[in-house]
Amino acid sequence: MPNQHRAHQYKEFFVPSRLDQVISLAKQRGFVFQAGEIYGGSRSAWDYGPLGVALKENIKRQWWRTFVDGREDMVGLDSSIILPRAVWNASGHVETFTDPLIECLQCHKRHRQDHLEEAYEAKKKRAPESMDVITCPDCGTTGKWTDPQQFSGLLKTYLGPVDNEEGLEYLRPETAQGIFVNFANVMTSSRKKPPFGIGQVGKAFRNEITPGNFIFRTREFEQMEIEFFIAPDDAPKWFDEWVEACMAWFEDLGIDMENIRQFDVPEAERAHYSDRTIDLEYRFGFQGSEWGELMGIANRTDYDLRSHQEASGKKLEYFDQASGERYIPYVIEPSFGLTRSLMAFLVDSYDEEEVPNSKGGTDKRTVLRLDRRLAPIKVAVLPLSRNEQLTPLAKEIAAKLRRNWAVDYDDAGAIGRRYRRNDEIGTPFCVTVDFDSLEDNAVTVRDRDTMEQQRISIDELPGFLAQELLGA
Amino acid sequence: MPNQHRAHQYKEFFVPSRLDQVISLAKQRGFVFQAGEIYGGSRSAWDYGPLGVALKENIKRQWWRTFVDGREDMVGLDSSIILPRAVWNASGHVETFTDPLIECLQCHKRHRQDHLEEAYEAKKKRAPESMDVITCPDCGTTGKWTDPQQFSGLLKTYLGPVDNEEGLEYLRPETAQGIFVNFANVMTSSRKKPPFGIGQVGKAFRNEITPGNFIFRTREFEQMEIEFFIAPDDAPKWFDEWVEACMAWFEDLGIDMENIRQFDVPEAERAHYSDRTIDLEYRFGFQGSEWGELMGIANRTDYDLRSHQEASGKKLEYFDQASGERYIPYVIEPSFGLTRSLMAFLVDSYDEEEVPNSKGGTDKRTVLRLDRRLAPIKVAVLPLSRNEQLTPLAKEIAAKLRRNWAVDYDDAGAIGRRYRRNDEIGTPFCVTVDFDSLEDNAVTVRDRDTMEQQRISIDELPGFLAQELLGA
Repeated sequence: MPNQHRAHQYKEFFVPSRLDQVISLAKQRGFVFQAGEIYGGSRSAWDYGPLGVALKENIKRQWWRTFVDGREDMVGLDSSIILPRAVWNASGHVETFTDPLIECLQCHKRHRQDHLEEAYEAKKKRAPESMDVITCPDCGTTGKWTDPQQFSGLLKTYLGPVDNEEGLEYLRPETAQGIFVNFANVMTSSRKKPPFGIGQVGKAFRNEITPGNFIFRTREFEQMEIEFFIAPDDAPKWFDEWVEACMAWFEDLGIDMENIRQFDVPEAERAHYSDRTIDLEYRFGFQGSEWGELMGIANRTDYDLRSHQEASGKKLEYFDQASGERYIPYVIEPSFGLTRSLMAFLVDSYDEEEVPNSKGGTDKRTVLRLDRRLAPIKVAVLPLSRNEQLTPLAKEIAAKLRRNWAVDYDDAGAIGRRYRRNDEIGTPFCVTVDFDSLEDNAVTVRDRDTMEQQRISIDELPGFLAQELLGA
Repeated sequence: MPNQHRAHQYKEFFVPSRLDQVISLAKQRGFVFQAGEIYGGSRSAWDYGPLGVALKENIKRQWWRTFVDGREDMVGLDSSIILPRAVWNASGHVETFTDPLIECLQCHKRHRQDHLEEAYEAKKKRAPESMDVITCPDCGTTGKWTDPQQFSGLLKTYLGPVDNEEGLEYLRPETAQGIFVNFANVMTSSRKKPPFGIGQVGKAFRNEITPGNFIFRTREFEQMEIEFFIAPDDAPKWFDEWVEACMAWFEDLGIDMENIRQFDVPEAERAHYSDRTIDLEYRFGFQGSEWGELMGIANRTDYDLRSHQEASGKKLEYFDQASGERYIPYVIEPSFGLTRSLMAFLVDSYDEEEVPNSKGGTDKRTVLRLDRRLAPIKVAVLPLSRNEQLTPLAKEIAAKLRRNWAVDYDDAGAIGRRYRRNDEIGTPFCVTVDFDSLEDNAVTVRDRDTMEQQRISIDELPGFLAQELLGA
């Protein structure tokens, strides 16, 4: 029999954080599943369920509309994950994309030295004087470590009929290089000239030693990257403009700007190609450090194009006919984490509130206050009960709406419970088909945020939703 | 000095095929570039330029609308590329996803035995009696071959801080397994029951020994897959329905059905999991064999779910409350090649015609007759000339249309040439802003297919385009 007193204490002590609740909701409702869960799962990657893939696609679409289709000075690209090895030699990734690893002399497990130092510091409130005071998290031995060795963050694979160094290739650790190596082809075929940019959304892979924090740090992840090509002198101006544009994008999609801050990355912590980097950090609410990197804006100078020009022998310059100048463009790179953005939108939109119930008391309601453009399901069609008259009418309405929107049809359980289910996945509108509908040819439309209900004729429903969801 | 007579003969002999012309257009206009071209390129993968990524995204969107959002019995998923190794052991891929390779004893290059045999047969019009008659395409030695060895088509990588067998993982050769291992999670969280399906779009990787035929056979490619879960007895019925639904999708998007045929794959050629497979083949117009596999519909029976249930120990059954039956669902799998579909849409829509020119003669016009839903650019805005009055008005119109559509702005060269440039990338409408526009507040809208022009007021332009492009 459980100790009631202790169970109570335990419960008080382990009040789940907001982040814990978001993660729990995400798993339970099919936003995010652990990859290969039936085989014990992996922390390397996560799978996006029916609601997660819809949310992710909606984020991508909004990003593409804002930054690619919506701008005259941008075009899109989709380059491959496996690029020739020469690309990664020239980009500096083979040489410099490494982490310092140390190995425990007792159990031979490897760890990142900087992560162990940070953990020590977080716990002891002071920096370790040496590795002698640091304990192996695997076996508990203290101060028995090898010297650090540089370990590559690139994932290898082998292509072709022989399985040796000849066929060695890397999975891209950033989508950016696919843009740089296509720079000349894109500029020529799309008849663009600086200032112009190329946007790309896609998977990237990094051999993170310590993946963790849900979908925040994984070995397989998705990026949305822009490489914006400009005259060298214009770099500071465009850098500032892109920082503003990125902030504005999150704000427009409903992120509370109190939860975003800028971090001007000091030189020692910047990537090898960067002359300046500002990270946008989001208040994810991790244990220890609340904030985590959401995206970065970097001034990559002409580092990448120059490196590829030297290594490939192909000219990657731009000749400005107006000024008669020839230059290798500078590059401002706004690099968004797509999966991190998804996590931020989930955390930011998660809300709990007390609402009146039918018994004169209150119930807790969980609601994802996602921007309507991001909501995975736009409208739920709910027949009041399973009934031979209501069901066909509700199905007919759902089928009609499905031509334009992601629609859920739900006829299981009490109507109040169905409202709650839709609130917690962020569905903007619930359409209830009741017995009056058979008479007045109208339905009750409930708003997720206000919970207000209005009667709308079935004929006017598509127009109402178009107006509310598209503002059109 | 070149031999004029021979040059002439050469030219007649090498009339480029329709496929060659499509490939040339695709490269020149920025649909498809060779991956890593500045480093000599790779046949493993291709990069999709500004028009290619737009076309590819439009194909995906139509597929998702038809088969996922558009159906009550479907949900979506996006699983990871790297799944735990146990998945590929259970699925049978580690053991059976192999090709027979033979090695030339002279030059030690490896080849697929079946491909060499096919090439011999195509050339000599008869099957080779033995490998003794087959010549190495690399060094020209005849009949000096090793015995065939099975070579895995899976691409390996290594995860984690150690670079050995412990961290060995595979890049998925099909998106399907990500669906099977998430079957129970998706069914529970989305409250579905058979018959229902899960759709997914994503990259897959196969270590093809002989990639080729442009984007047709590559090591990195994209699939659009559906796994449709049903009661075992219903498999034949659903198999037929899915074959029809796949045919109908291509037909609806404008593919000439004369260019699609069904191939009922004999048992010996089917994948290890399939009880029946029908391939839809498209008439790509390859040299040798005109037809190539566009997609396949397979009855995978309960092979995959049963294998994963046995290997993982997790129940992957469905309990039908109505009948009281418990069963492992059968699976009908329509598996579309996304990149192959893109190639088919390009080839099928490519057209050349003679049109009257202003001198009383005719000019050749190339036009991509893409369905409007697939066209990468929906509307081009063309000021008649670069002019301080026309330019601002044209830019204003372009900016307004860009809120809803992919818009190109082009003010370079004669208007006729700009029409041709838009015809050959399939832009449905060209909007010309001329000096009359300054007076009558109207523009000339030209239709890609009919080349007819009509005058439309600028205020009515957004409504006109919405009607024509959405049918709304």
